[in-house]
Amino acid sequence: MIINQGIEHFGSPLYLESGRILESYDIAYETYGKLNKKRTNVIVVFHALTGSQHAAGRYENDNKFGWWDSLIGDSKTIDTTKYFVICANILGGCNGSTGPMSAEPSSGKLYRLKFPVITISDIVKAQQNLFKRLGIKEAFAVIGGSLGAMQALCCAIEYPEFAKKVILLAGTYATSSWAISFNKIAMEGIVNDPRFKNGQYEAGDFADEGLLGLALGRMAGHISFLSPYSMRKKFDRNYVDTDGLYELFGRFQVERYMEYNGYNFSKRFDPLSYLYIIKAMNIFDAARNYESLSDSFGFIKAKLYLIAFKGDLLFLPEDMKVIRDTMVSLGRENMVEFMCVESDYGHDAFLVEYDKFDSYIKKVLDEEF
Amino acid sequence: MIINQGIEHFGSPLYLESGRILESYDIAYETYGKLNKKRTNVIVVFHALTGSQHAAGRYENDNKFGWWDSLIGDSKTIDTTKYFVICANILGGCNGSTGPMSAEPSSGKLYRLKFPVITISDIVKAQQNLFKRLGIKEAFAVIGGSLGAMQALCCAIEYPEFAKKVILLAGTYATSSWAISFNKIAMEGIVNDPRFKNGQYEAGDFADEGLLGLALGRMAGHISFLSPYSMRKKFDRNYVDTDGLYELFGRFQVERYMEYNGYNFSKRFDPLSYLYIIKAMNIFDAARNYESLSDSFGFIKAKLYLIAFKGDLLFLPEDMKVIRDTMVSLGRENMVEFMCVESDYGHDAFLVEYDKFDSYIKKVLDEEF
Repeated sequence: MIINQGIEHFGSPLYLESGRILESYDIAYETYGKLNKKRTNVIVVFHALTGSQHAAGRYENDNKFGWWDSLIGDSKTIDTTKYFVICANILGGCNGSTGPMSAEPSSGKLYRLKFPVITISDIVKAQQNLFKRLGIKEAFAVIGGSLGAMQALCCAIEYPEFAKKVILLAGTYATSSWAISFNKIAMEGIVNDPRFKNGQYEAGDFADEGLLGLALGRMAGHISFLSPYSMRKKFDRNYVDTDGLYELFGRFQVERYMEYNGYNFSKRFDPLSYLYIIKAMNIFDAARNYESLSDSFGFIKAKLYLIAFKGDLLFLPEDMKVIRDTMVSLGRENMVEFMCVESDYGHDAFLVEYDKFDSYIKKVLDEEF
Repeated sequence: MIINQGIEHFGSPLYLESGRILESYDIAYETYGKLNKKRTNVIVVFHALTGSQHAAGRYENDNKFGWWDSLIGDSKTIDTTKYFVICANILGGCNGSTGPMSAEPSSGKLYRLKFPVITISDIVKAQQNLFKRLGIKEAFAVIGGSLGAMQALCCAIEYPEFAKKVILLAGTYATSSWAISFNKIAMEGIVNDPRFKNGQYEAGDFADEGLLGLALGRMAGHISFLSPYSMRKKFDRNYVDTDGLYELFGRFQVERYMEYNGYNFSKRFDPLSYLYIIKAMNIFDAARNYESLSDSFGFIKAKLYLIAFKGDLLFLPEDMKVIRDTMVSLGRENMVEFMCVESDYGHDAFLVEYDKFDSYIKKVLDEEF
């Protein structure tokens, strides 16, 4: 599989939903496979909260595969011998695209907390500019899970001519208060951590010891990605050290899992970037700039394929069903498919239980290509 | 209603489950109503994680009612004109009973992190000593929700002659990994907060500004006490300040709720005490010192009344049903009643949706009294 990495610089301003402006910005991305001559084999993949443009394959001298490598690759579900796949790091991210730790062009100083609040619409708009720059006017399909599903839905509403098929996994029409409450732990943790210094930290400050507030927020996130049922299956009440039973810090396996994920993440992810991305997630509501959800969905021309997971507490299947029902109420029942995967894994199922939905995605992609 | 407050000091050692010993200890408690001459009208109420012995009524010059005041009082569900109600602050607590911020008798120094790990069994054992001291050999009923239900179940197994009726609300036979993971946020938050000083803080250090780590842990707790459904009903996506939509710290109502509960709690509750109590909660497993759950339940002589709440994610109704099923498998179907309250409120329902279970409790209490 051919992996290409790139960063595009955009010198003309990006007008944001908030009314603020980014004078210039960069978008980092990766592509897999080859664009065909007619440019009709594009599949856009949107990454989730803390994902990156590295969706598939692996770099030389690195043993880490992309976050959706199980799905994307030669002869895989998203077959890179047929399709040209693009994944861009979201605006506000910290993996090459412009974010709060980028330099503000006029002063050369890092934005930090002066970075404008961005929304899913802004993220999608910047991506559209990238696609134009790459000579891509339309996609055969766009696909994303979680925050990626928000981008996919937003793209379907705001760029109705862009994609033929829009595939959402573990998505929603609007972020729930349940999700916002988990994000709140990260927000309070980061902002009030003395090492955050009101955003005036140095870029390398957390390489060895991550920001505690971010680690705690990420731990909260990792709870929200699972469910009481998947945790029981994964960890039950197993101890790491059986002799630690009566020690205050004798650990359960689930506690080690939380530590591992929270502390490692806080060394590699920028806290300001995390703040801005969870804010974009919290703001997301597909009806926000419209009269109603029906009103906004009225713009959609693509066919929607909705894949919900029964045990997903963060983005409830019934919320995804609202997307289906709204399309049906618009007389568009032939433009929407809804599938609820039997799973008690929780929100993370879209990154784990591939065998439960990959054949469906393959069918969706291959039926008209 | 007559409220009596008391603290009893115990000079003989308490042998703990861990093998460690408390040379002496205090237990603070409250009582409501009057003990009858035959001492047959006792109802013991066990408080939850951060509750206290102040279960009902209100002190002079205070406008705060006890945490279960809706249920306990003259002519209420737990009728203090008939019953003599006792509630004790748990061992390890910070409301008068001995805990990590108490003085170790031999040195006079505060225990802090040298306080022994305590378990639900230890908490119940200390309470039993209190009851003996007060001349109470048996209770007509014991009742508790959440951590209080753990104490009630433990009491039924380890002191089978003590109570005739044992009422558990939102309880479980063993703490789940889901619950442990929420506690983990508090544990990591507290221990790694620089102001915690490895437990060497001064008692008044957090009166004005609570410990951040505890506040974050409590916020996580408040998520676990609710559900995606109750949060939606309570808060939906409402903003506190509508003009804050595109401000990084423009808040949703659910965020204000989290702040309010987290930060206020961290000013009033001792972080070391919180650490020890969540540890006791994590350790709880009614089968731990037995061959199996059937083995431990074989000791129970009381009739169990189990009140689960359908939307409780923290202590799942199906886990409470395991208690019922185990009793049935022991041929004791006439010694257990199981009721699952239709509710999507979440774990906190036992502190909120009284009208859904109070008549049941009244019936249970009054049918044989």
